[in-house]
Amino acid sequence: MSDTVDHDALAAAVAEGMYPRDKAAQAMGIEIIEAKAGTATAKMTVRDDMLNFHGTCHGGMMFAFAGSILAYVINGDNRAAVAQGCSITYTRPAHLNDQLTAICKVVNQAGRSGVYDVEVTNQNSEIVALFRGQSSKIKGEAVPGLNKQFGIYGTTN
Amino acid sequence: MSDTVDHDALAAAVAEGMYPRDKAAQAMGIEIIEAKAGTATAKMTVRDDMLNFHGTCHGGMMFAFAGSILAYVINGDNRAAVAQGCSITYTRPAHLNDQLTAICKVVNQAGRSGVYDVEVTNQNSEIVALFRGQSSKIKGEAVPGLNKQFGIYGTTN
Amino acid sequence: MSDTVDHDALAAAVAEGMYPRDKAAQAMGIEIIEAKAGTATAKMTVRDDMLNFHGTCHGGMMFAFAGSILAYVINGDNRAAVAQGCSITYTRPAHLNDQLTAICKVVNQAGRSGVYDVEVTNQNSEIVALFRGQSSKIKGEAVPGLNKQFGIYGTTN
Amino acid sequence: MSDTVDHDALAAAVAEGMYPRDKAAQAMGIEIIEAKAGTATAKMTVRDDMLNFHGTCHGGMMFAFAGSILAYVINGDNRAAVAQGCSITYTRPAHLNDQLTAICKVVNQAGRSGVYDVEVTNQNSEIVALFRGQSSKIKGEAVPGLNKQFGIYGTTN
Repeated sequence: MSDTVDHDALAAAVAEGMYPRDKAAQAMGIEIIEAKAGTATAKMTVRDDMLNFHGTCHGGMMFAFAGSILAYVINGDNRAAVAQGCSITYTRPAHLNDQLTAICKVVNQAGRSGVYDVEVTNQNSEIVALFRGQSSKIKGEAVPGLNKQFGIYGTTN
Repeated sequence: MSDTVDHDALAAAVAEGMYPRDKAAQAMGIEIIEAKAGTATAKMTVRDDMLNFHGTCHGGMMFAFAGSILAYVINGDNRAAVAQGCSITYTRPAHLNDQLTAICKVVNQAGRSGVYDVEVTNQNSEIVALFRGQSSKIKGEAVPGLNKQFGIYGTTN
Repeated sequence: MSDTVDHDALAAAVAEGMYPRDKAAQAMGIEIIEAKAGTATAKMTVRDDMLNFHGTCHGGMMFAFAGSILAYVINGDNRAAVAQGCSITYTRPAHLNDQLTAICKVVNQAGRSGVYDVEVTNQNSEIVALFRGQSSKIKGEAVPGLNKQFGIYGTTN
Repeated sequence: MSDTVDHDALAAAVAEGMYPRDKAAQAMGIEIIEAKAGTATAKMTVRDDMLNFHGTCHGGMMFAFAGSILAYVINGDNRAAVAQGCSITYTRPAHLNDQLTAICKVVNQAGRSGVYDVEVTNQNSEIVALFRGQSSKIKGEAVPGLNKQFGIYGTTN
């Protein structure tokens, strides 16, 4: 990848191109706050249809929230990537109307494989879940056409 | 727990009591097919609003599906339990309208902690995801009142 | 791979070829009891130099035991493989002189990636640890020369 | 815990009290470089008896190294703790005579449960493995007598 590429601008453009096609994130009301090279931030409010039978936020919804922002970071260089395996630890319950923030950061990216962490916090800055994802690059651009626009040429995968 | 308790009937009654309060599972269109002592089965069809930007089923939705059926098994003895940590490995993509089946089985339950596996397959019996959850017992009944109905007395937690 | 290949015999031959080069397994006193296609069994006795400061078997030694037998199963088709990521849950302590058994079984192998489970039990058949490994195929034969001997031709990786 | 406790000094004293009883860490040649409140650092050189059949450092030995330093951090407040579940991702091979460093840091500690990360690097500061551990507090002091010495009174577990 050329040294002249603005990696932060590329990550932001990838996020802009991805979101309209990301129906699951839209359906969950997830908002992408920021996308830069190697990191991104999202927000989601716990809705009534996200509650489990205990009356707290379903762990699967917290995972889906964390996994959503993961997708924006692992694709942020516009080389398409997928999550291969992920783990989550729940540290405290989230409740109806809680405003959750998920921050994803790259821990290690080597060749086609990467490790990324997501921290999910509530409106009181308390950690509710810790998520770690392993990603794998696949063929193609995350958002077709962006490579050319950003002056990226050659096979990057 | 008394030897005279019908554990399979108890697990089925717990599931019946849990589902009406499990808004997330209902919102995802998850159907509980069977709940017995130590195992349960659910079905879910991949909807348009479950797709990620690749156009395949969002990994978070597959996790939420697996995590949902986990809840029915770890609460199946009516001693309330929560998932503490979970991991998932994706083995092949799931597509729009795929009919997914999730089967959860206990691997080990010792004291308050348990390990449970969920296998998610598609309509061709191909594995799409493998999920492992660690559970932790909390205080109380999963479905209040069921203990008495099934002749379970004393503090089981 | 030809249909005429005896996959169980191949796995046994791979194990025989691997063990003399597996210095870590030898140093831990791990014994490979059986290696077949998709499964293998090992034994290890908890030694004094495997204890942690609590006086019980170091969790790292239990992991290394489980990871060792994993290697024999993921390489059992003689296509070289490595562990990419692994997780372990400890269900009860192991003690000095405990005789541990680890049984590894394939859960899913698709393309170059696989998921394998290892169950570690003590001499009373109690589960002490549950291990799950993700493997990845690399280039080459696990034991060079075995492919020819077993009539396997062509690029299998 | 009293505000007047020197938590860094306590963590160092715990490490000093733990190491002589930590036979596995000694047998692996692990050296504890530093132990402070919430973090600790260890070093280990890859020996010949730590190699797997590929001729690289056995993944189980890397895990045992990471898990060892984890023990010093989760016990650093002298409230005894054990690892409940751990996962590791291997990012590059380690070779004979590589000098590995493991740094463990607390990510979250809430009640009796905690999440801790360990990063293992080689002599070129390249990440070779990423480890995440879930801990659980048990009864008692990690190093009996230290609470009194540091002016910690009352039941902290």
